[in-house]
Amino acid sequence: MNMRWPGIIETYRDFLPVTETTPVVSLQEGATPLVPAPLLAEKIAGNLSLFLKYEGLNPTGSFKDRGMTLAITKAKESGAKAVMCASTGNTSAAAAAYSARAGLQCIVLLPKGAIALGKLAQALIHGAQVIAVDGNFDQALAIAREITAAYPVTLVNSINPFRIEGQKTAAFEICDDLGAAPDFLAIPVGNAGNITAYWKGFQEYKQRGRSTSLPRLLGFQAAGSAPIVEGKIIEHPKTLATAIKIGNPASWKSAETALRESNGQIAKVTDDEIIEAYKLLAAAEGVFAEPASAASVAGVIKLGRAGFFQDIDGNVSVVCVLTGHGLKDPDRAIQCVREPVVVPPSVAAVVNELCLS
Amino acid sequence: MNMRWPGIIETYRDFLPVTETTPVVSLQEGATPLVPAPLLAEKIAGNLSLFLKYEGLNPTGSFKDRGMTLAITKAKESGAKAVMCASTGNTSAAAAAYSARAGLQCIVLLPKGAIALGKLAQALIHGAQVIAVDGNFDQALAIAREITAAYPVTLVNSINPFRIEGQKTAAFEICDDLGAAPDFLAIPVGNAGNITAYWKGFQEYKQRGRSTSLPRLLGFQAAGSAPIVEGKIIEHPKTLATAIKIGNPASWKSAETALRESNGQIAKVTDDEIIEAYKLLAAAEGVFAEPASAASVAGVIKLGRAGFFQDIDGNVSVVCVLTGHGLKDPDRAIQCVREPVVVPPSVAAVVNELCLS
Repeated sequence: MNMRWPGIIETYRDFLPVTETTPVVSLQEGATPLVPAPLLAEKIAGNLSLFLKYEGLNPTGSFKDRGMTLAITKAKESGAKAVMCASTGNTSAAAAAYSARAGLQCIVLLPKGAIALGKLAQALIHGAQVIAVDGNFDQALAIAREITAAYPVTLVNSINPFRIEGQKTAAFEICDDLGAAPDFLAIPVGNAGNITAYWKGFQEYKQRGRSTSLPRLLGFQAAGSAPIVEGKIIEHPKTLATAIKIGNPASWKSAETALRESNGQIAKVTDDEIIEAYKLLAAAEGVFAEPASAASVAGVIKLGRAGFFQDIDGNVSVVCVLTGHGLKDPDRAIQCVREPVVVPPSVAAVVNELCLS
Repeated sequence: MNMRWPGIIETYRDFLPVTETTPVVSLQEGATPLVPAPLLAEKIAGNLSLFLKYEGLNPTGSFKDRGMTLAITKAKESGAKAVMCASTGNTSAAAAAYSARAGLQCIVLLPKGAIALGKLAQALIHGAQVIAVDGNFDQALAIAREITAAYPVTLVNSINPFRIEGQKTAAFEICDDLGAAPDFLAIPVGNAGNITAYWKGFQEYKQRGRSTSLPRLLGFQAAGSAPIVEGKIIEHPKTLATAIKIGNPASWKSAETALRESNGQIAKVTDDEIIEAYKLLAAAEGVFAEPASAASVAGVIKLGRAGFFQDIDGNVSVVCVLTGHGLKDPDRAIQCVREPVVVPPSVAAVVNELCLS
């Protein structure tokens, strides 16, 4: 057999902390499409080449699979029998799926009542043991930290260092596809692990001679949940983009380093701007991403309106990271559309509705 | 630029009805994982090598994208301004996404009240014009046929011949990954277009010297919706596997030809068997597929229980086609799992729940 794509660990093994005896746990994550978005580019600026890194096409529907394949692989290598995370969304889905594949027990802690059962569908169907703690998220995370310190259970929350190592491979793929780093990488910022990972990836690829340039990073936070932009912890973050609704990012400092070193910038976009971009992506480019993903596109649209790209000489290449699939949050799509019209069962009635001549 | 995977039309252009001037409409569909399933194989038969063709990782979450990239490309090439389909599920999602990308109007007809709005989230967010006809599905389809015959609107239902041409590329990918066709291909059968397409693909690849063998086809229908197995139209098909709930398959004859020519067989699996396989896939292999997809795995499990594979000398390779992602039907997952337990916010309470020593 000669798999076209054996997953990110086998493909980028030289860049990752694995040996020949490491028991790789993979669902063939990665190799996600870099989709050209010419219609969107044209709307934003005449000199823009825009691409969408469609991370929703990872196995569990989000970029979290890149970090989780490595975190679970390393947990298995270390002899752990179980892994644990405090998470309400994409992280728990990825942890549960890779744990199932590895034959490890997966335990998900979450605050009671904080999350609809639908958001947990993936973790539960993949066999994770989900425990609701009658407290808040911070209490759930504190319990997870304490248990994983005392028992042979590996914590796979974002403080697990292998998560960022795995996630950096998305930068490698972009360089491989484009033949170089883009001029700009636009990315939603929540816990700030992903922007940290991309910057690490772009740097390592250049250091090892696999690419010749570095991008400038453009981070975007939701306006009601923008601690890095505001320069302060947000006690009660608010945004409909749940995947980036975080008031005190775990990777705050490394994100600021990445922004500074890349000569980048971070800004905020409103929920209205996010939804506008979310709908535009689906209707103009045929790409359905979860709302948080659209923050990167919303930010680029906003910069375009301010003349940011137009002020640059020559063609400008921008990659927008779309972190998760729109199917992760179908309710949001339903809220954005109109109910179908109802007509009698006749050709004439349908033709009339369509305004066909 | 040098895209790792430019989509199925560019990759398999020599096998498809396109020319150098055809305006290819692609979301980089295809190149879906062929995931080894060793744990599942071991449960079924000692001499089995089992692989899952995870078609849920296509852009809109199902195999329909393979056919739709070609159907929409050809519609655009022909000068059509709009496309139409009568569909309640995966077909409408794919038609809407590719139409959006092509800049074509997409019209979806469906019977009023037949479908929850959630199932239409994708078609609607991709900007399709969804019209509910106050009648049944047959009436909706008849109206679609009549309108597309009379107006410059292309019908992209399964009778569109380009759909099967595009879908056959999944067989090419399997041969490319394995280095040959598998001994058996197991596939859910609803409208029977996909089994027809796979057989066409395997045959063409062998004829052109790109593979050396042909698989035997194993088709599986849901027990309450098994017209080909029963040899008669099912007036009121019943199964929770909605994607294969079809009583009078459009490609009935070509499916029977494929089964006969490949020395294959078709059988039925109950909804209970489908759900057992659906849960096993997620919990043992970390792969979340929609219920209809699990019919292929349920069928292979059933054959294994009957000693089918064990009776064959030597190792037997089987590829199970998983047609759509589990996120297409999250409600089904929720119905299959238990609610999380609730514990007080203390380490002791959580440890006690986990039976950690």
